Amino acid sequence: MATKAKIGVLGASGYTGAELVRMLLRHPRAQVVLLSAERNAGKAMREIFPQFSPFELPTLVGIEELDWAQAALDVAFCALPHATTQKVVQELLAKAPATKVVDLSADFRLHDPAAYAKWYSHEHHAPELQKEAVYGLTEIHRREIRKARLVANPGCYTSCAQLPLIPLIKNKAIELDEIVVDAKSGMTGAGRAAKGAMLFSEVSEGFQAYGVGHHRHMAELDQEFSLAAGREVIVTFTPHLVPMNRGILSTIYVRGRRGRMPQDLHALLLKFYMNEPFVHVLRFGETPQTRHVRGSNMTFIGVANDRIPGRAIVISALDNLVKGASGQAIQNMNVMMGWPEVMGLQQVALFP
Amino acid sequence: MATKAKIGVLGASGYTGAELVRMLLRHPRAQVVLLSAERNAGKAMREIFPQFSPFELPTLVGIEELDWAQAALDVAFCALPHATTQKVVQELLAKAPATKVVDLSADFRLHDPAAYAKWYSHEHHAPELQKEAVYGLTEIHRREIRKARLVANPGCYTSCAQLPLIPLIKNKAIELDEIVVDAKSGMTGAGRAAKGAMLFSEVSEGFQAYGVGHHRHMAELDQEFSLAAGREVIVTFTPHLVPMNRGILSTIYVRGRRGRMPQDLHALLLKFYMNEPFVHVLRFGETPQTRHVRGSNMTFIGVANDRIPGRAIVISALDNLVKGASGQAIQNMNVMMGWPEVMGLQQVALFP
Amino acid sequence: MATKAKIGVLGASGYTGAELVRMLLRHPRAQVVLLSAERNAGKAMREIFPQFSPFELPTLVGIEELDWAQAALDVAFCALPHATTQKVVQELLAKAPATKVVDLSADFRLHDPAAYAKWYSHEHHAPELQKEAVYGLTEIHRREIRKARLVANPGCYTSCAQLPLIPLIKNKAIELDEIVVDAKSGMTGAGRAAKGAMLFSEVSEGFQAYGVGHHRHMAELDQEFSLAAGREVIVTFTPHLVPMNRGILSTIYVRGRRGRMPQDLHALLLKFYMNEPFVHVLRFGETPQTRHVRGSNMTFIGVANDRIPGRAIVISALDNLVKGASGQAIQNMNVMMGWPEVMGLQQVALFP
Amino acid sequence: MATKAKIGVLGASGYTGAELVRMLLRHPRAQVVLLSAERNAGKAMREIFPQFSPFELPTLVGIEELDWAQAALDVAFCALPHATTQKVVQELLAKAPATKVVDLSADFRLHDPAAYAKWYSHEHHAPELQKEAVYGLTEIHRREIRKARLVANPGCYTSCAQLPLIPLIKNKAIELDEIVVDAKSGMTGAGRAAKGAMLFSEVSEGFQAYGVGHHRHMAELDQEFSLAAGREVIVTFTPHLVPMNRGILSTIYVRGRRGRMPQDLHALLLKFYMNEPFVHVLRFGETPQTRHVRGSNMTFIGVANDRIPGRAIVISALDNLVKGASGQAIQNMNVMMGWPEVMGLQQVALFP
Repeated sequence: MATKAKIGVLGASGYTGAELVRMLLRHPRAQVVLLSAERNAGKAMREIFPQFSPFELPTLVGIEELDWAQAALDVAFCALPHATTQKVVQELLAKAPATKVVDLSADFRLHDPAAYAKWYSHEHHAPELQKEAVYGLTEIHRREIRKARLVANPGCYTSCAQLPLIPLIKNKAIELDEIVVDAKSGMTGAGRAAKGAMLFSEVSEGFQAYGVGHHRHMAELDQEFSLAAGREVIVTFTPHLVPMNRGILSTIYVRGRRGRMPQDLHALLLKFYMNEPFVHVLRFGETPQTRHVRGSNMTFIGVANDRIPGRAIVISALDNLVKGASGQAIQNMNVMMGWPEVMGLQQVALFP
Repeated sequence: MATKAKIGVLGASGYTGAELVRMLLRHPRAQVVLLSAERNAGKAMREIFPQFSPFELPTLVGIEELDWAQAALDVAFCALPHATTQKVVQELLAKAPATKVVDLSADFRLHDPAAYAKWYSHEHHAPELQKEAVYGLTEIHRREIRKARLVANPGCYTSCAQLPLIPLIKNKAIELDEIVVDAKSGMTGAGRAAKGAMLFSEVSEGFQAYGVGHHRHMAELDQEFSLAAGREVIVTFTPHLVPMNRGILSTIYVRGRRGRMPQDLHALLLKFYMNEPFVHVLRFGETPQTRHVRGSNMTFIGVANDRIPGRAIVISALDNLVKGASGQAIQNMNVMMGWPEVMGLQQVALFP
Repeated sequence: MATKAKIGVLGASGYTGAELVRMLLRHPRAQVVLLSAERNAGKAMREIFPQFSPFELPTLVGIEELDWAQAALDVAFCALPHATTQKVVQELLAKAPATKVVDLSADFRLHDPAAYAKWYSHEHHAPELQKEAVYGLTEIHRREIRKARLVANPGCYTSCAQLPLIPLIKNKAIELDEIVVDAKSGMTGAGRAAKGAMLFSEVSEGFQAYGVGHHRHMAELDQEFSLAAGREVIVTFTPHLVPMNRGILSTIYVRGRRGRMPQDLHALLLKFYMNEPFVHVLRFGETPQTRHVRGSNMTFIGVANDRIPGRAIVISALDNLVKGASGQAIQNMNVMMGWPEVMGLQQVALFP
Repeated sequence: MATKAKIGVLGASGYTGAELVRMLLRHPRAQVVLLSAERNAGKAMREIFPQFSPFELPTLVGIEELDWAQAALDVAFCALPHATTQKVVQELLAKAPATKVVDLSADFRLHDPAAYAKWYSHEHHAPELQKEAVYGLTEIHRREIRKARLVANPGCYTSCAQLPLIPLIKNKAIELDEIVVDAKSGMTGAGRAAKGAMLFSEVSEGFQAYGVGHHRHMAELDQEFSLAAGREVIVTFTPHLVPMNRGILSTIYVRGRRGRMPQDLHALLLKFYMNEPFVHVLRFGETPQTRHVRGSNMTFIGVANDRIPGRAIVISALDNLVKGASGQAIQNMNVMMGWPEVMGLQQVALFP
């Protein structure tokens, strides 16, 4: 049996942290040797997430107690809050330059310091690393990820929008100035912090949009879509909250360019993802449901005719905690470590 | 005290039937004297809907047993399945021409026999009544409803889309060829028939679109939007299912015409609905949630800036069983009977 | 038209506060003239609960700003946190002795200073008022409530357990030492404070017990059951959390005394509640569902045979925010003010 | 690599069928070679359960088309409706006596023909097999299962009640005549048949008991508890429906025998399950939540003090589709085939 790599999860008391632990416990090459959590330092993981009661896991520690050189992690997953992340990753890589880092925050996703400063209202604390970081949507940037030391794991909303749109944009198959992304997310996307608006009684039996016209994820979409198009692309994007735990579904309205019909867009996506293990394009006219990817690392994409000729409705679905966060992060680790990309990620969706 | 009108509810064992009974039990001028249900004929309403156990209500009867002339209803609410409706209403009005009818099915909503035949794949069984019927979105067609004998109550999805869009279309405030309506509905919209796809375990913890590109409600939207515009208008419309019981939310993407900004659209809607008791326009930038209209006859409308200049995001929310069905039907009854329009409809939304 | 009474709701930004406002807006004798809220003082009610956007309501004020004598409230509903309540009510009644108070907290429910001190770990701050307060389960203590100035509104769990059990205990119909109450509550019972354990993602798609063996509501049950029995009664009580907003259901296991069969217990309850407008005893063998009392002030009670001879299963259901809190409070106000007991409380349950 | 066993799933279009397929797809020794479904014969599994779209699976066939001898299955999982099962298993074992069968229906759970006839109102169709079948609660009957050809997989409710109670009963640690099991189940326990009462809108936002006093699962409890006690044991058992997909939680009220305190019961359970991979006893006073076993084959058990001295509250939780059905079935297969008992069953619970 191959030796196992030493893995740390920084920020293990949040949902993406727990999800990383869930999958790493079954990953054949991974051994979780370090779990950090600020307010919960000193506790056992089972106190924070009782589902881990039957498993042996390291006690949660505070980050400031850590000696990164001594820890000698092979891989660190960083699931820390915005801004804290920059400082922690900077210090970690200074002290332990051989550790590979997959960062699940938004801190290293934007390459342009100006764009970062605009959306986050302050200068980046680690501009050198911001330059070095590779944007980690594996299906699109696999080659760079393979050589990366620091990967910025994409956001869940943006992954769900990029996977169907990037191939269409790259291939100049759709009009770039009238893309509408109407996105709907389960509640785990809001994290585990105690916010009044996220209480069960506030959320259950209801539906709403939020952040209309000014959601931070837009910066990430702008960057990646513009990169794919070779010119600036700005899309309309509206996020909504669904009373469910997991899942994002994006309903995307596009118009084919130069006579391209919805079937052509479908064929293009089918071909683009033919050999991808984690993106599945449904038959033409079929559309996905979030429940059919729950708990798995899959993205399902469907394409259907709009009744307005030349327009298509493209729908994508993924589990925001898996392909939208922790599964994607492990996929990136596998690529960075030269392991089979699907390793530890082959769980089948849990439905019902 | 004024005498009470004799009210019948045909199809009382479905959700819209129960909702009518719920509200009629507290309506000061209404007395429910007749409840019909096919398969459940002979049963007490409390066996079908136990929430009515404490109340005195007529036993459910089969429609074929009824003598309409003898029943001498003042108002009949018809909540029957498609197609059955046409025959029942035709017979009812032939035998009891003084009865006023509010039909909650789709059968009399389309005025054009050709459109009806196209969307329903058969000729209408009561073409004379189809011509006579008045489309019952009260805020738009109040004048005709006042004199009507037969009112076709609008669909829930279409009410939610029309209330924000009709004023904008009528006032030529938006581009007509790029309207996108992304609609999300709770599960009661699917009715009470036992369908596998509507089981709790199929629906809970998930989200999906359905009827993509070819939903029947589109015919109703085409008719009313074209009427308001004075030319043919076809919109993109995608319905989705939300794991909740009640509520529809429509996220509508529009572009202002001739330099009209989102604030202008907001001002227009605010003015249009200033004196309407059941349509409430939120402050600019605020957007509604379905939970805040639950159980009430209110529609909430919000308007916000899209980040693409000149485009607006308009969001509307209503309770599909109340303003989207039974409350709207009672509102129409009130208008037809010359009663105060808000009578029996002033329940405040139930949240949480 | 009769003049309206001046009503204040202290603690209007919580769920029971909002529920009071919802019902008072439709109460023919009530006018809400004062709404208080600490952290939200200065805000409009519509900012806290958007469902009230279409209504005129007083701006929220802080309690410390209030001059009780000048306010001259006819009735004050007090929906404040534990302990704060005692001080506020004491001051209110000192300054405005003619105001009638219905307190929705637990602060005045226990008559015995020693029991209070034991369960709450401190002496009561207003022992005189503790003595004066009347326990407000109307069906059991109506006579005292009629003359009361301060009514302690019962807890939701305890109301749901008392309504079926008090008549059985009073009539010596069941064994007192083997009563098991297995109670299940919706999430609004936990209030609106932002607690991590109440987040949607922590609660949805799951079920759990809590406070096993040591829940504070037990003190209230002990007091009322012992009072009814004329000797000390201690029951087994386990609360559980259901992923739903509203509703409590209690499954109660009892053994008939002296040969009393389940049918006898049913007959006893049926007779006891024959003329009560808000307690409905179902037919023998039928059992209630929380959804059939949602939003209404009703309690439904069912009695069925256990398969062990002589044992019965008694099940009760109510809406924790209505009959379990705010509806009960308005019922008490009606009794205290000499108004018809059902006034403003006749909403029919909202199902589905 | 070891050769794979040929596995058939009869009744693959139900929830337990899908759950078997989900786990078998990742079982290192299993190859699914046959999937049956009556109404859906001829369809692809992906049409019935879209989550399987990315996987290669055999097309669904009708059972009557099958030649069992030719199929030469190593293991058949039988997830068919009651009564059909008896005939199919009889024929299968007659034609292919080397096939091992794990039956997930209730048909072979009762050993006593008289008990079967009483609860199911007809004679058993395969009395010889009824005698041969081994009751498949692995932790209790592992030795017999090892040698069995036909294993009757236990019911979900009964597994959840037996795992905590059998050790207590066997060890004469609790009074046998006052056991109360108050059980709560998610909706997948009701299966995938289209029943009106299981519609989302009927189930969501509510809670209820059902089958009060006369649920069929009681026969199975009677048999196993009486066997463990060496005398007849009849418990009070009430099932309830929780608006969630997966999970059963049993709240069990017991009294210790001969001075045994709750801590003693806890110690006994801890010892009994010390080496069991799928039963985890929490620390004393901790109680389980269904969400922490979701999707896993674990059972969590907690023991706490009742406040009535000498009485304990024992709470158990499992996933009704995994340890309560398909996971248990695979565990039995592993034992019957001599494979490691945990093989293919080590998925960690999915929370949130």
